[in-house]
Amino acid sequence: MAFALDPRLVADTFTLGDMALCRLLLMNDSRFPWLILVPRRDGLSELTDMTPYERRALIEEAALAADRLKILTGAKKINIGALGNIVPQLHLHVVARFEGDAAWPAPVWGSGKVEPYDDPRPMLDKLSRGLIMGEA
Amino acid sequence: MAFALDPRLVADTFTLGDMALCRLLLMNDSRFPWLILVPRRDGLSELTDMTPYERRALIEEAALAADRLKILTGAKKINIGALGNIVPQLHLHVVARFEGDAAWPAPVWGSGKVEPYDDPRPMLDKLSRGLIMGEA
Repeated sequence: MAFALDPRLVADTFTLGDMALCRLLLMNDSRFPWLILVPRRDGLSELTDMTPYERRALIEEAALAADRLKILTGAKKINIGALGNIVPQLHLHVVARFEGDAAWPAPVWGSGKVEPYDDPRPMLDKLSRGLIMGEA
Repeated sequence: MAFALDPRLVADTFTLGDMALCRLLLMNDSRFPWLILVPRRDGLSELTDMTPYERRALIEEAALAADRLKILTGAKKINIGALGNIVPQLHLHVVARFEGDAAWPAPVWGSGKVEPYDDPRPMLDKLSRGLIMGEA
């Protein structure tokens, strides 16, 4: 089966490009620098649906994304989460958090009202450096 | 430096025992079957503070905990998260979720009022099977 992003992820994000395992997305919410990693394999919902090799790739790509996000934004803390209560397709949130941000210290999921980017290009340009293999 | 649990984790949890890398805790909130994995190495806050070998062990232990939790509770979905906005010591939440549970479909963190167990022993007995190396 070909890999296809869940339509809700398509609607809520911009595509940064592909890492070795994951499609890398930017959440369209300018309140938080917020990446989403989606392993490009269909039918995944839980960590236990992956092989150990895929899990190792996923956590290394998450660590790389977290590292870049922290360095590029100066975040105080990176939040990582795989929930999937609404969108079952396995996806991992990697979110830069700052003291006093719109949800601090609560989680970002379900917090307040999304504020879409006026223009996501500066953030896309900033975050894609060093993370993606090529143009999406 | 010897490994020591953050006092807030001590106060909020029961100890199940040790996996190869992580101390395994049960959150004292009877609304959700909720495990917390804490790598037994001091000074960790972000995924990027670990070596690739430790990250691999962490995600394998998380997958094992998630698998056991799903099988033993019949959960619809497992939620996984590493936040650390309040307790900086690196810890990974592995939470069994059910449609119609006290927070569904929102995240459990910061949702409603904690309901401590009257007696955590049945849940501790159930969840420790197959996960821990010995008595804590």
